[in-house]
Amino acid sequence: PEPATPRIVTEIPGPKSRQLIKELGKIQNVGAVHFFCDYDVSCGNYLVDVDGNVMLDLFTQISSLPLGYNHPAMIKAVTDPSNLSTFVNRPALGIYPPADWVGRLQAALLSVAPPKMHHVQTMACGACSVEHGMKAMFIKFMTERRGSATLTPEEMSSAKEGQPPGCPNLAVLSFNNSFHGRTMGCLGITHSKYIHKLDLPVPDWPVARFPELKYPLDDHVRENQEEERRCLAMVEELIDTWNRKGLPVAAVAVEPIQGEGGDNMASRDFFQGLRDITNKCGIGLLVDEVQTGCGATGLFWAHEHFRLSDTPDVVTFSKKMLTGGFFSKESFVPKDGFRVFNTWVGDPSKAALLEAVVNVIKGDNLLDRVKVTGQHLLNGLKQMQGKYPGLISKARGLGTHCAIDFKDAASRDKTIAKLRERGVHTGSCGAATLRLRPALILENKHVDIFMESFDRVLANM
Amino acid sequence: PEPATPRIVTEIPGPKSRQLIKELGKIQNVGAVHFFCDYDVSCGNYLVDVDGNVMLDLFTQISSLPLGYNHPAMIKAVTDPSNLSTFVNRPALGIYPPADWVGRLQAALLSVAPPKMHHVQTMACGACSVEHGMKAMFIKFMTERRGSATLTPEEMSSAKEGQPPGCPNLAVLSFNNSFHGRTMGCLGITHSKYIHKLDLPVPDWPVARFPELKYPLDDHVRENQEEERRCLAMVEELIDTWNRKGLPVAAVAVEPIQGEGGDNMASRDFFQGLRDITNKCGIGLLVDEVQTGCGATGLFWAHEHFRLSDTPDVVTFSKKMLTGGFFSKESFVPKDGFRVFNTWVGDPSKAALLEAVVNVIKGDNLLDRVKVTGQHLLNGLKQMQGKYPGLISKARGLGTHCAIDFKDAASRDKTIAKLRERGVHTGSCGAATLRLRPALILENKHVDIFMESFDRVLANM
Ligand code: FES
Repeated sequence: PEPATPRIVTEIPGPKSRQLIKELGKIQNVGAVHFFCDYDVSCGNYLVDVDGNVMLDLFTQISSLPLGYNHPAMIKAVTDPSNLSTFVNRPALGIYPPADWVGRLQAALLSVAPPKMHHVQTMACGACSVEHGMKAMFIKFMTERRGSATLTPEEMSSAKEGQPPGCPNLAVLSFNNSFHGRTMGCLGITHSKYIHKLDLPVPDWPVARFPELKYPLDDHVRENQEEERRCLAMVEELIDTWNRKGLPVAAVAVEPIQGEGGDNMASRDFFQGLRDITNKCGIGLLVDEVQTGCGATGLFWAHEHFRLSDTPDVVTFSKKMLTGGFFSKESFVPKDGFRVFNTWVGDPSKAALLEAVVNVIKGDNLLDRVKVTGQHLLNGLKQMQGKYPGLISKARGLGTHCAIDFKDAASRDKTIAKLRERGVHTGSCGAATLRLRPALILENKHVDIFMESFDRVLANM
Repeated sequence: PEPATPRIVTEIPGPKSRQLIKELGKIQNVGAVHFFCDYDVSCGNYLVDVDGNVMLDLFTQISSLPLGYNHPAMIKAVTDPSNLSTFVNRPALGIYPPADWVGRLQAALLSVAPPKMHHVQTMACGACSVEHGMKAMFIKFMTERRGSATLTPEEMSSAKEGQPPGCPNLAVLSFNNSFHGRTMGCLGITHSKYIHKLDLPVPDWPVARFPELKYPLDDHVRENQEEERRCLAMVEELIDTWNRKGLPVAAVAVEPIQGEGGDNMASRDFFQGLRDITNKCGIGLLVDEVQTGCGATGLFWAHEHFRLSDTPDVVTFSKKMLTGGFFSKESFVPKDGFRVFNTWVGDPSKAALLEAVVNVIKGDNLLDRVKVTGQHLLNGLKQMQGKYPGLISKARGLGTHCAIDFKDAASRDKTIAKLRERGVHTGSCGAATLRLRPALILENKHVDIFMESFDRVLANM
């Protein structure tokens, strides 16, 4: 059963973690390793490290656990004899899918597809989902330009070489403070921290400003509307400029909430504006829900909050979805095989786990729970910012996907460390933001444990 | 138990496969889907499709099954209660590794590391392995150029934008007919089929010729030496040209055998030459063993056949290794964290399966078996090309990683189809090559079944 409270018995990382970090350091870089965990005994919302520290986990493996640790339904999926061959025999899914694959796609993915999206392609992680989602958009863009013309020998031979006309000069527009992954194409649309791209030759593509909204939102309605209009105008201008300089923008990529870059949010109007601009220009709109998808915002997909008049063209997912992949409009499904393709194109064993997760989300009404718990969490954060006004601000979020800003990085980092000493594990993002990424099973009682510790830590800052 | 012989009861794809392809076609592009499989009853070297056809599988999910279907050791790894939490709780491995992770890396990966390589980084598939392997080489290259100088503010801010000096202009040199993956960086070093890159903006990097050897090798020793010398000279020339045009070559990427581009092989001298040139120029050498690694050539790594005087800098793997990743020299391990990084950086459940596989390879002396079976297979192929000289040629391979060329694509494709009608499933690559990629458990008796069918099919061509 899930522990009732956190329990801290050593500093973190403790002696056993430090020993293991030392050993792992002989094998690879361990600059990012924080502590080692005992996943056998971790349970529900509680993560247990190898030194026996029991932490309330509000970061959940960089936002990648839908149901916390060792959920009975996931244990059942792994131990179910009818799933055994799915875990043992990973197929080349794009050529030789298993007998139950269509049913699995329907139960695990189409049953939770974004409104009006009926096509899905599995992948294995967030990066390949975004890379292949972009490929689908490039292919659509060029197929339309080519029209009914057949491929020329020159297009074919130059494509093999990696040169125009077969490999055209095309760009994807993205936003400042975005994060979409760490392979080369994904890095071309990622602009959050310099260390992600330093020393790497990445595509130099247009970057628009993402709205920087003033909080509380109710007190800055007009300023924020103007800010969003400026950002949208910049998008239009960049598309125009880059088209004219011979590097056409084939698509725009955006996160519903910029999860790594500082939990930056924008309004429905902004996203509707992006949809309108991209439709008007005949280019694709990729909404990257790798971090926001799978219910954390209280709706299954964060972009559902925007009630767009037309669906995005591509919606990517991974993390809590356990499998990577993307939904797309039918018109963005390549007409030929072997274009959005690789050896595995996903993993049926992850889809089997996702099917179990989706059934729990539906059966336990977890989206409703997330809405309730999220409201409680956001209320608490707002109360805290009222109590510590010089220190924290901009409490914000959807569902339990919440964040709050600190006056500077140092106070943010110190707060996270002090929270951990009290057994509450949280995350950071952006310049001075504390981010909360709990599992969908979080309850008000867990929020209360966090909020009591948060209050005490802030009081001592 | 494994079937004794193939058994074909319908055409392939049969009616059940065709029905499922139709249903899947409503959800995604199915241009690459061949037939649906029943993985519950597939066993050992035999794949069973949903229509009940039992095929001897010499292609094994694009070369990705080390031990065939439903091997008892892999079933044991999945059902072992001590592995349960590993399959249920996928961690953010780069920050919160599980307690047994160092031991797992040692047992599953370092115990089979290429000679003199002691550092390994897990990834999740071939593409991210190559992408991050290239990143490690770019980082090494620029870190050396920077020397003791600290980062300038301009380097940091331009890196976030994706522009020099933070994101420098750098290239990786690769070879004609290479294949390294389908994300943008991987596509920059891939030159096998135009459809892989058509319509996609991929890096335009230098491409050298891969040796085109004349067979039988013994009859063309001098010509082949000259051909390899010409290709190496082209590598040196391209490095020089691209350096002078301001797009320095930071690394060379090469497959020990070009697995997608036509099973093209080169000699030890060629690979030693590449190692010498890259060392002389102070640039990295990435040997991509995604398809060749894990024992199929009779040695665990194909590049071991070359007995290089100095190890490659990066050796990538995936497919039969079940987990992606790369080994590297210590000097190619980035000094800072969060550079070769992503949410999952691999999957401990795949490492658990790999550990079981490695124990079987060692315990059952499978590399010895591959050598014996491979010799039998290659002898058979040579006999066939003696018998059908106008039709097939260039029988070649290492271990059971074998191939033979046809006079044209049509006769190759027809042979593969006719073989399948007789229950032997093989693969194609390059322009007119039939490739064999059996599991490591293949035995002489399976080779005999293939060879008898091959003989009959060729006799009727
Ligand atoms: S790039 Fe996604 S799993 Fe490798």
